[in-house]
Amino acid sequence: MAPLRVLAYARQHRPRFLAELQDFVRFPSISSHARHSGDVKKCATWLAGQLRRAGMQSVKVAPTRGHPMVYAAWQRAPGRPTVLVYGHYDVMPVDPLGEWRTPPFEPAVRGEDLYGRGACDDKGQLFTHVKALESYLKSEGALPVNVKCLFEGEEEIDSPNLASFVARNKDMLGADAAVMSDTRMLAPGQPAIGYSQRGALVVELEVQGPRQDLHSGNFGGAVHNPLQALCGMIATLHDARGRVAIPGFYETVRRWSGREREYMARTGPPDAQILKDARTSRSWGERGYSLYERTTIRPSLDLHGVLGGYQGAGIKTVIPARALAKLTFRLVPDQDPDEVARLFRGHIARITPPTVRSAVRILSGARPALVNRHHPALRAAAFACRKGFGSPAVFLRSGGTVPVVNTFQEILGIPTVLMGFALPDNRIHAPNEKFHLPNFYNGIATCIWFLAAAGAALERTRRTREEAAWSAAT
Amino acid sequence: MAPLRVLAYARQHRPRFLAELQDFVRFPSISSHARHSGDVKKCATWLAGQLRRAGMQSVKVAPTRGHPMVYAAWQRAPGRPTVLVYGHYDVMPVDPLGEWRTPPFEPAVRGEDLYGRGACDDKGQLFTHVKALESYLKSEGALPVNVKCLFEGEEEIDSPNLASFVARNKDMLGADAAVMSDTRMLAPGQPAIGYSQRGALVVELEVQGPRQDLHSGNFGGAVHNPLQALCGMIATLHDARGRVAIPGFYETVRRWSGREREYMARTGPPDAQILKDARTSRSWGERGYSLYERTTIRPSLDLHGVLGGYQGAGIKTVIPARALAKLTFRLVPDQDPDEVARLFRGHIARITPPTVRSAVRILSGARPALVNRHHPALRAAAFACRKGFGSPAVFLRSGGTVPVVNTFQEILGIPTVLMGFALPDNRIHAPNEKFHLPNFYNGIATCIWFLAAAGAALERTRRTREEAAWSAAT
Repeated sequence: MAPLRVLAYARQHRPRFLAELQDFVRFPSISSHARHSGDVKKCATWLAGQLRRAGMQSVKVAPTRGHPMVYAAWQRAPGRPTVLVYGHYDVMPVDPLGEWRTPPFEPAVRGEDLYGRGACDDKGQLFTHVKALESYLKSEGALPVNVKCLFEGEEEIDSPNLASFVARNKDMLGADAAVMSDTRMLAPGQPAIGYSQRGALVVELEVQGPRQDLHSGNFGGAVHNPLQALCGMIATLHDARGRVAIPGFYETVRRWSGREREYMARTGPPDAQILKDARTSRSWGERGYSLYERTTIRPSLDLHGVLGGYQGAGIKTVIPARALAKLTFRLVPDQDPDEVARLFRGHIARITPPTVRSAVRILSGARPALVNRHHPALRAAAFACRKGFGSPAVFLRSGGTVPVVNTFQEILGIPTVLMGFALPDNRIHAPNEKFHLPNFYNGIATCIWFLAAAGAALERTRRTREEAAWSAAT
Repeated sequence: MAPLRVLAYARQHRPRFLAELQDFVRFPSISSHARHSGDVKKCATWLAGQLRRAGMQSVKVAPTRGHPMVYAAWQRAPGRPTVLVYGHYDVMPVDPLGEWRTPPFEPAVRGEDLYGRGACDDKGQLFTHVKALESYLKSEGALPVNVKCLFEGEEEIDSPNLASFVARNKDMLGADAAVMSDTRMLAPGQPAIGYSQRGALVVELEVQGPRQDLHSGNFGGAVHNPLQALCGMIATLHDARGRVAIPGFYETVRRWSGREREYMARTGPPDAQILKDARTSRSWGERGYSLYERTTIRPSLDLHGVLGGYQGAGIKTVIPARALAKLTFRLVPDQDPDEVARLFRGHIARITPPTVRSAVRILSGARPALVNRHHPALRAAAFACRKGFGSPAVFLRSGGTVPVVNTFQEILGIPTVLMGFALPDNRIHAPNEKFHLPNFYNGIATCIWFLAAAGAALERTRRTREEAAWSAAT
């Protein structure tokens, strides 16, 4: 049954939905900066208020050791399946601040886009679900399935408290499938359902030299500069062809069938599109793989920053006592973060010059994730996308890391539908992040259609599961 | 004639001299930070007041396009030689601030040392001259030679306005020799006269990739990370043996005679001393040269900082759009900064990977400097050091760069006496900079003895020069 009244409500309230999204973006809920923890909390409280006004129940801001979780539920459809909606209301830092055309926490509409930190990742996308729930509850007075919401405030710092929270609250969070919108579409009007994400291993590599900073005039040429030694070590982590040059690194990387690679070539973005999205004309990396493959089924290693020495204005001719690099490995099936960490430690120990010392710190690890793209919940999402955007959805792999997919699979035993509304050029994590407003409105419609379709789809899986259990028991 | 009354005055007023030096250090006169320009100016005005109270005349704070010069003169010895005293009242930045045991601009006496930014470089050393002048003028009512003082506020940012100021004020600054205290002694109680400094070429190397920062999850493996590319390029600037690997770089490096190298081995610090000063146990660099040689008669290249990407707390998995390295070459006779800049530009153009773009910016250049160590002014300085410290001075090469020596040589045609009172472990430019107070007091005595001896010494050179001119004219 088409949710026409619900869709009409959503269409009618677009101006208010946009104004509320702007209010949402105004909170500088940067989870990685301790000085913003008050803002993160205020943002959580505001979001809880939104859910309450939408008509959700059991709304609470649940404390963790870090930033709080926002929880809500509507369970007035006894016997029907339950959907768990996940999202995150925290955002990335904003530097380099000078490159923003308008301040990151003063959301601005230009053309068809809303600019601001978090406009896309993930406040705007999370909000499509909140507004879909509101539209249902305000127009129909009920939802077609039971729904639980879990919105976290630490996704951008690798969700340090998510797994334990989920494990402690298995009953409260129990569901038949999870859905989240924090991934990309192929292009405007080309919706995509994610079914594969890379894992991640975040590390710091520190190189230590003399016990204090030295003046390069006095000691330059006689003491190994730790910053130079670090650059030298980093330079050896890739070979000349763009492959990670750590022995054993590719050993467990899965080789995909020709059929799967053909599917990817047919459905995924072509090289030219990826380069356009990256705003560069030059590709790089492993030969023999398309750029889509390089960023999804092939692992990578990126350097995010080098600390140490002098980074201010002007000049300071210092030999720093130590230098530190922040790096992330993106991992693919069947790589294991712990094993890669072991290989990295061993490699660094081998390549550290005898004139300096080095230390490796593992900050976090997440396994790569795969969801069966034939699961009924994913099929329901594809249907919802076609209805919401008016064109068929493709099943897409993503290069990013969504550890929550593993968490829900491992602790709750449910698949996660990645039904994202970001566009490749939305500059998430970068200056001038934006959210395409047609995607906001079509995203809300898609979420409405998903709620409408999920019940029947999930009942089918449930029946299948129950039949399987019954067969097994007899 | 021994300046006994002058020395007695200096000894008697030590507590006040120290208190005044602490006042001097309290000014956060960081020349490289625009936000401190008011502090630099206040420091200049305070220093001018000191000179005025010491009894100097024509005292003024002379504006430049940047921070002001402090000038003073005493010219009541007509017909006698003139000494130009140079120093700088600006200081280096203080980061990493967390490593200071006491705040950098709250000077603190611990043991026999005064701790604070600029305590040694160069406020403490500059002040020995101011207090020597005061001691003479207050006890004898006159100086034994004419004296001019030029104290600049931009030495730590490579003196961008010094040469033009000197050129515009040749008459006002005209002298027979210059003297400055901004170099190191061999060890406590072992004074040294500098006769050689390395030159410097300060450069920035920028690598540019995509037109905006990218998320490493989405693009890692498909786009060349400019920060990684920069590290790779920096890694190739040295070979495995610590030599600068830029073709042609060593071509003009002077090969010194065995006799000069023997003199250096006899007078200079042994390797163990240099490692102790650097607080490290591991040496590095060109084989076949002592550490003293590596830091004085051999060129070097040091990396001071890498900008780009994310350097804050927490994690940001970004592929930065660009990355920048700050580097300094230290140059030796007969290297020319312009020629080295040309070699560096050519080399960078050759090693830039086709997947990124690069740009080289030359921030400043200074030629290496050599002063004839047999010049009478240097001999007078050696005599003064022996009187002031009670032990003979050695003639020492320094690895640092003192561009003013070239400026005075080229524009005023005079040699500069480098009579420094810093110790190798004074941590100049680093946290917990300190000045050894016995060096402060003995330094004042040395400056007094230098004023006493300089007249006769310089008159001899002047006579020689006049005779030479007379011979040439007839």
